[in-house]
This record gives sequence, C-alpha cells and structure tokens, in this order.
Amino acid sequence: MNEMYFEKIIKPTLILNEQRAHENIKWMAQRAHQAKVQFRPHFKTHQSLEIGNWFHEIGVRQITVSSVEMAEYFAAGGWKDITIAFPLNFRQIDQIQSLALKINLGIVIENLDALTLLGKSIRQKANIWLKIDSGTHRTGISWDNLEIVFQILTESRKFHHLAIQGILTHAGSTYTAHSPEDAIRLQTESTKRMVQLQRDIVQAGFLKPLISIGDTPGCSLLNDFGAVDEIRPGNFIFYDAEQLEIGSCSQDQISVALACPIVALHPERNEVVIYGGAIHLSKEVFLHAGSTSYGLVAHPEQNGWGKILPDCSIIRLSQEHGILSVPGSMMDQFQIGGLVMVIPVHSCLTAHLMHRYVTLEGKEIQMMAS
Amino acid sequence: MNEMYFEKIIKPTLILNEQRAHENIKWMAQRAHQAKVQFRPHFKTHQSLEIGNWFHEIGVRQITVSSVEMAEYFAAGGWKDITIAFPLNFRQIDQIQSLALKINLGIVIENLDALTLLGKSIRQKANIWLKIDSGTHRTGISWDNLEIVFQILTESRKFHHLAIQGILTHAGSTYTAHSPEDAIRLQTESTKRMVQLQRDIVQAGFLKPLISIGDTPGCSLLNDFGAVDEIRPGNFIFYDAEQLEIGSCSQDQISVALACPIVALHPERNEVVIYGGAIHLSKEVFLHAGSTSYGLVAHPEQNGWGKILPDCSIIRLSQEHGILSVPGSMMDQFQIGGLVMVIPVHSCLTAHLMHRYVTLEGKEIQMMAS
Repeated sequence: MNEMYFEKIIKPTLILNEQRAHENIKWMAQRAHQAKVQFRPHFKTHQSLEIGNWFHEIGVRQITVSSVEMAEYFAAGGWKDITIAFPLNFRQIDQIQSLALKINLGIVIENLDALTLLGKSIRQKANIWLKIDSGTHRTGISWDNLEIVFQILTESRKFHHLAIQGILTHAGSTYTAHSPEDAIRLQTESTKRMVQLQRDIVQAGFLKPLISIGDTPGCSLLNDFGAVDEIRPGNFIFYDAEQLEIGSCSQDQISVALACPIVALHPERNEVVIYGGAIHLSKEVFLHAGSTSYGLVAHPEQNGWGKILPDCSIIRLSQEHGILSVPGSMMDQFQIGGLVMVIPVHSCLTAHLMHRYVTLEGKEIQMMAS
Repeated sequence: MNEMYFEKIIKPTLILNEQRAHENIKWMAQRAHQAKVQFRPHFKTHQSLEIGNWFHEIGVRQITVSSVEMAEYFAAGGWKDITIAFPLNFRQIDQIQSLALKINLGIVIENLDALTLLGKSIRQKANIWLKIDSGTHRTGISWDNLEIVFQILTESRKFHHLAIQGILTHAGSTYTAHSPEDAIRLQTESTKRMVQLQRDIVQAGFLKPLISIGDTPGCSLLNDFGAVDEIRPGNFIFYDAEQLEIGSCSQDQISVALACPIVALHPERNEVVIYGGAIHLSKEVFLHAGSTSYGLVAHPEQNGWGKILPDCSIIRLSQEHGILSVPGSMMDQFQIGGLVMVIPVHSCLTAHLMHRYVTLEGKEIQMMAS
C-alpha cells in the first residue's frame, strides 16, 4: 500500500494483507496435514467465494459454514462438501433438503426430534454430526449425557440415508484464555472429553464416531491433536486482537485492519476521535491490559500497517464514532484528516459488517450479501 | 401478523409494527410542535427511504443523518435539507462539496481547521453547526471553551458562504440514566450549558446561535425544551430495551422485534438457544435487573408480540447463537422449531445489521445498502 493509495481511503475500509492471509491458510493446512487430521476450515470468517478459492488452490475441498444461506452461497460457487456447524434450524428444512440433493451436506443435530425430522424430510444421503457440549455450555448434548447420545444413535439406525459421521464440538472456552498455556489446557480438556465419549460410544456397540473440533486458539496452538479426526478453525485466516491477547497468533499473522479517518483530537483528555464505530467494528470487547477495549491500533505504513501502538486502545464506540485513548506523549502522532489502522477485537464480526475487503494493492474483494 | 405468517419466518427477521412506528413519529412531531422547536429527526435509526416517507407525509422536511453516504442516499430520494451530525471528515470533502451544490446541507465542525478547509473547498452556501461537548465527552468543543468557539466564529466571517447556524450537542449522557428523572436531569444539565454558551456568544458580540439537541431519552421525556431551537432524536421511531430501561418509552411504543427460531433447549440450565446472534442483534449490552443483557424477549402473538417476559434475558451471544435464560417454570413455553421475539438492546444497530424490515402484514421494507 503506497501513500497515494492511503489518500484514496475516505471512510472506514477493511484492509486485507492478502499475502498474510495466504500464509495463514497454508500454515494451518500444513499443521492439519502433519497432525494427520482432516482440515475443514470455517468459512464464516471471510464469507467470500474469492477468498474461498485461495483454500481451493491448495487442495481444500471440505468446508464449514454457520448458516444455510452460507451453505447455499458456497454450494453455488462450486463447493461440494459443506458442514453447517449450527444446530439444525427446523424452519429451514426445505432449503436443507434441496442442499442435500446437490452436495455432500453435513448437518449438526443435538436432539432426537432433529434426527426424526431429518429422517422424514430428507430423501438424499446426508452426513449427521452430533453436536457435543465439551464444556463451553453454549449448546450441544453434554459430553457425559450418554443416555441421549445412545438414544439418537439407536434411532438413527432407522434412517439409512442419514450417515452418522461423528461427534462435533467447539471448545469456545479457549476464547476465555489469557495465555497459550491456558488455551491449550482448555482445548486438551475439551478433547479428552470427546475421546471419552468416543470410547463410551464404541463400548456400547456403536460404530466408532469421528471427532471434529473447531476453535482457532486450540488449532493454532496444539501440536498433538491426539485422537481428533477433523479440525474446523475459521478465524486464523485473519486473526485479530483477541487471538493476539490469547497468544494464538503473532502480530505479523494478523491480516486485516480497519483503516479509519481521524476526525477530531481531544488533547485535554488524550483522546483521538475516529470515523469507525459499532457499525464497522461491532461492539465486541476484550480485556486488554486490565481494561475493556474495542480494538488496538497501528499507524498506516507503506506495506499496510506497523506494529501495534503500545498503551493505545479504542475505549468507547458509538454507532459511527470510535474513541481512541493514547498516551499524552503520543498525541502529536495523530492528525485530523489522517488515518488510524484498527486491529479489530473479533475479525469475523468486523468482516461481516464491512461487506468487502480492499487488499494492499487496492483490489476489492466481495463477500456474500447479507 | 397471523399464524400462517409466523410459519413463513425461517431465519432471524426484523419485524416492524408499522402502526406503532407511525404513532411514534406523530407523537414526537407533535411534542416538537407544542414545544415550538424545529423537528429534525435523525434518520440513522431506520436508514430507509420508504420509512422516511412516513415523516414526509406529516410535514417533516428537515432531517439529520450520520454519514456522507446516508446524506447522499436521502438526497437522491428527494430530501433537500440534511444535517450530517458527525464531525467533518476531511477525506470526504469532495462528496460534501457536491452535496452542498444540490441540497441545503448542514455540516458539523469542532475545530478551526475544519472551518478553514470548508471555507476553501466549498463554493456553495452551507450551514455550519459547532459541535459542542455539553458533558458527554465523546467529541466536540467543550461548552466552556470560549476561546475556540470565539476563534471559529471570528474566522467564519471570512467565509460569507458558510452560514453559522448555531451550536449542536448530543446529550449522550442520558443513555447512562436508569430512570426518567435521571435522564431529565442529565438532559437539563446539558441544555443549561448550551444556553450558557449561547449567552456567552451573544455577549461577545456575535449573532445569537440556534441550539440543537439530539437524544431520544431527553426528547421523549422533557416537557419544556426551554431555549432549545431544534431537536434531532432518531431512536424514538423504534425504541428498544435500553430506552425502556431508561424509562423513555413504554413497552407498547417499541415497534421492532427480531423474530428468532428456537434451535435447542437446555432445561438442565434453564436456557433456550436461538438462531439470532451478534450478526443480527449486534453485541450491544445493557444492565437489566443487575445483569448484563443482550436483549429481552416476548412470545409471538397474532398482532406482533406480547408483553416482555419477566425474568427472561439473552445472556450470551456469539456470531449466530443467542442464549436465552428463562425461569425453570417457563421452560415449557419454548419449543424447538418455535419462535421467540427479541426486543433489541439498541434498535439502530440491529436495523443496520438486518438490512430490511418485514411489517406485521408481511410487507418487506428496504433500507440503504451498506
């Protein structure tokens, strides 16, 4: 990105360092390859056919999405093997039925009614994953609730077109970690429970289920995936401030930043007002240096952006305004009319809000309409 | 909304009670009329030409927006008098220049450089408002910083095409109120400071500036607007859970709710999992009954939705999942495949994320592309 290019940025713009994104993709694919686990990246992070192609180019054929619409979008773009990693939405059964006719569709269920509904509605083969709660308590069957697991597995024998693939979890608890060790410990604990459940299922006389896990912190940090068969990380293509805080990435791996015009300076309270608010960054927060932060910042540089500025943080956000707190000694580094590069707290949400990416070369990349 | 209509809702859908929205518009216009203040509603809440027409029908001709793009959108739709209530973004001076040629444009500045830039760039007449910080500390010139105010007013005499209209503030502090009395007190305090500044400006020999204020809590609750000349509330057309908490609206005034499919039940922890997450509601939170909440809920009913359910709250949100906490005794009111109507914390952000509205009659209303 050259200076002339910076001049063209007139409003909040999501800048993508394409090279870093490519490197992140290759790195995670390689990790999966070395660990001999199936790589089924989550495409909810980028939501873009063009970026999806970067995965395709290195041999990825199996993907994860988070909604039926996203599955339709990528199926229309030529993807043939898609898992919708969200509990079956009964109200979209017609769309799911159509998708199952076209592609190798993976469906996630977490109760018997869902299985029965699918058994009755879907004629074509579909892959079923049992959503397991391995400790996050968001949703899924508790990993030690064997009664329901066995009930679903027994019932599933009635439906020959529904192939139970395995057990699937998202160790979302790793997002609460404040160190790599913490994240690894939480991920290992989650996986142990999945392995225990796998063993219980086999001991009860059912086929051995595959184990699919999902979180970017765990998949970035673990070197031994143990008995895991499939990983579904998504965020790693961009990473963000939250991942940096956890320790699951380095600064040089973060591939997106929101370029925000500076619109006001308040030296009396060491604050810089940027054009960039909740409708650009989302109101996702994380705890940074003991305080709530809506994002970290860097200066624009010829090749994108520089190192994250120490002791600077977006401390408040309204619909369009962002309030950046900086040390008094740094106030003179910011000028009205200039730009600040914001490292989002959660890049998935920022990407979703921004609808498009602009690469360092100035190329625009579209994502699915929402 | 009849039962058949509910059946057609298959994914998170923003339902608009059109009649309530009309009533809210009329009510606020009437308040302004009675108080003899100019009504310049903020259109960032709905961002829709069609909804804008509802204001036009009752005689509204002057509006507020929060971005240059929004000004362009409404100008293209025929609106001729628009204030962009966001500090001048130097990088969009070309677009602003074009807009000033077409419409009666209001521009908000908060420093001398902005005035100088406008003076040099804009050839056509433009209305200038001085953005004043009357206590919120988001942005603007501090109400007691007479030095800068006088400097800008003096300098403005050089530019005959720039008409200083007055002083403009947003008493965002009212959003921190937990009672109507609190909101009124904060609003009154803010307005007093604006009146003081107005007096100081006149005493220094400048023309008497108009006073423009903006917040929905204040504009909903104050009966006496005192020396205020113009009000710019926006949220009141929809209201939301936060406004209800402040006490600036009643339940029956809330005109939007997000219809969300129920996808899982967890009676072991009295939680209902809904399809409706951060990409639908935003991650805006408020303090409700002493706890953090991402939204309140009601059951769907023939004419929209019922009373807000006591002791129920969205307690966690991820990208697509919402976790609704309910009393154990109420768990049987929720079924997988059913719908829950979520009253958003901040309806402006939810509307922005959802891109469209569906009325109780099933009519779709579009908003500006983002």
